[in-house]
Amino acid sequence: MTAAKASAHDLARPERLRVDLGDRSYDILIGRGLIAAAGEHMVPLLAKRHVVIITDANVAKLYLEGLTRSLEKAGVKVDSIILPAGEATKSFAEVERVTGLLLDMKVERGTTLVALGGGVIGDLTGFVAAITLRGIDFIQVPTTLLAQVDSSVGGKTGINTPHGKNLVGAFYQPRLVLADTATLDTLPRRELLAGYAEVAKYGLIDEPGFFSWLEANGIDVIEGDEAARRHAIAVSCAAKARIVGIDERESGARALLNLGHTFGHALEAECGFSDELLHGEGVAIGMVMAFDLSVTLGICPADDAARVQRHLASVGLPTAPGAVQGRFWSSERLVEHMGRDKKVKDGRIGFVLARGIGKTFHPAHVDLAQVTAILETAIAA
Amino acid sequence: MTAAKASAHDLARPERLRVDLGDRSYDILIGRGLIAAAGEHMVPLLAKRHVVIITDANVAKLYLEGLTRSLEKAGVKVDSIILPAGEATKSFAEVERVTGLLLDMKVERGTTLVALGGGVIGDLTGFVAAITLRGIDFIQVPTTLLAQVDSSVGGKTGINTPHGKNLVGAFYQPRLVLADTATLDTLPRRELLAGYAEVAKYGLIDEPGFFSWLEANGIDVIEGDEAARRHAIAVSCAAKARIVGIDERESGARALLNLGHTFGHALEAECGFSDELLHGEGVAIGMVMAFDLSVTLGICPADDAARVQRHLASVGLPTAPGAVQGRFWSSERLVEHMGRDKKVKDGRIGFVLARGIGKTFHPAHVDLAQVTAILETAIAA
Repeated sequence: MTAAKASAHDLARPERLRVDLGDRSYDILIGRGLIAAAGEHMVPLLAKRHVVIITDANVAKLYLEGLTRSLEKAGVKVDSIILPAGEATKSFAEVERVTGLLLDMKVERGTTLVALGGGVIGDLTGFVAAITLRGIDFIQVPTTLLAQVDSSVGGKTGINTPHGKNLVGAFYQPRLVLADTATLDTLPRRELLAGYAEVAKYGLIDEPGFFSWLEANGIDVIEGDEAARRHAIAVSCAAKARIVGIDERESGARALLNLGHTFGHALEAECGFSDELLHGEGVAIGMVMAFDLSVTLGICPADDAARVQRHLASVGLPTAPGAVQGRFWSSERLVEHMGRDKKVKDGRIGFVLARGIGKTFHPAHVDLAQVTAILETAIAA
Repeated sequence: MTAAKASAHDLARPERLRVDLGDRSYDILIGRGLIAAAGEHMVPLLAKRHVVIITDANVAKLYLEGLTRSLEKAGVKVDSIILPAGEATKSFAEVERVTGLLLDMKVERGTTLVALGGGVIGDLTGFVAAITLRGIDFIQVPTTLLAQVDSSVGGKTGINTPHGKNLVGAFYQPRLVLADTATLDTLPRRELLAGYAEVAKYGLIDEPGFFSWLEANGIDVIEGDEAARRHAIAVSCAAKARIVGIDERESGARALLNLGHTFGHALEAECGFSDELLHGEGVAIGMVMAFDLSVTLGICPADDAARVQRHLASVGLPTAPGAVQGRFWSSERLVEHMGRDKKVKDGRIGFVLARGIGKTFHPAHVDLAQVTAILETAIAA
């Protein structure tokens, strides 16, 4: 089914995908109005009719009341914890504070946490769920495109430390993911685009047909066409679910999900993980670099790299470090950041390269001199 | 094989038990001199020849050098972190500090942590391993009887919060447990006895034959007979491994391991989890109470409860709260502590009762008035 042909009838029912992980399997529901219908979808999964919603101050204003009402109508006791918005919330201090609040509320092992928000809320809540009483259930209600297509699926949870992002955490799967597409209506365009970079990533990893579809329909996804959004989110979640199902703990296939991320993380680190460069923006630039590096290595047609750059630029994403206003970039410092990534193995930095669009792989070794050359060309661009 | 018949030849080789948990299975080795032979046993399991030993100041003096030497001789790079001895180390602050130190050391996902010490070190190290880089391997080298027969096996890891003990943590299995019986030679007798209470527990849960063996040979275990110690540790670990294999995450059978613990934890909590009452001492008193309660409920022969009390007292364990010098006990406050336990479900306190020695079960409901009566009798004793 192409998105353009989806009928109003199709859109009335949420799309249901399965993440297949044995006794840790769960569904992802995608559709409009899922927050208002949350009670109905969540109740069958609750060990005890008590949930604690964890959200941030911005999201709380928009969706906390609706989610609470739906759950209470379904006979669920609802508590909530509202955290400051922003990456700084992913800290040991907040984990300690939130677990303390949960214990104040006398949570039991049957209590379920609900993460209502973007990646920060999902990552923190998942980690808190993983360690409170040695593990209680949690449900993801992602409210950003990035969280809907990436961070809410797959069980990566965690916090940052002074050493870097996500260096402390757990692989801990949610019991359900409810992706309400209506939440994207209130998302700033810049954040929507940042999420879109991860959508495009799935096409580039191993679904060239999906990338072609995005070349034709990507702008509709961004502009708010409901059918196009659902299709893009569903294909993305299905791709992630498939890869996570093969490799839950990132020992092989899952590493492909890091396409563009080694470059991207280094750019983000250099910006101090501030709003100067959003994660998805770093990934967009990083994917262009990964394809350019592949071309330099003589393994990828130059046309494919050009298509990647052209499409990301066409929707409004940055594709070179120069897009960050007023920052001086140093290839040396960027390579240093890469050396501190948690995916470094035996001192080697992990890259994802491409033999073309939809043909990515994890090379055994990459020559850092060539990485530096790519960085310098990109910085000069 | 009875312990008395174990030959010198048998004792030269470590005993090997398997904890069967699918892809999380691991061996427990029990024997004299395992720390000196640690390199040989650990190396085949290391993803990378880098370990970080986590221990406390007391244990470091006795065993850190020997363990380090054995690992280095086997070609392993060894770092170590020495923590303050004592329960206060099981805190968020120490977890944050230790993960920071590990990241300073540039640990990778292939690095293995080694917990060298008693329950505090094992619980903290296991939890740190569970959350560093979303999970790295760890190995238990328990140096107390309590840790060898109980806390090092089964994957319960965690820390304390102001709300109570072990309220934050993870189920996270070690890759290997090395129980070196030689470490018991340096253990204060009071701690040895506290560990013995957990040994006796396995007999009471569902191995009446083992309890009879302890009635005859328990004093040899305490006095240091090598064959008796090995037998007691091996039977205890096998019992725990079997129960954990059935119910890793404590949804059913594993709850039987809490025999005596609901009473015991309340007694400990009232003492502020101080040295006034060691965990094993609380469990000893708690097991006597659980059997007395079972007699009161008319489900257990009074003779069996008497045997439990007699045996524990015969080796020198306390069997009533009065054993704690100069403390005033209140049954009301003890019941309050029970209500805050993390095993409370739907507001109900979890007890383990007995139909006799080796015939324990988890009742659906226990009348708190009868619990109070048992406490009052025990306090008055």
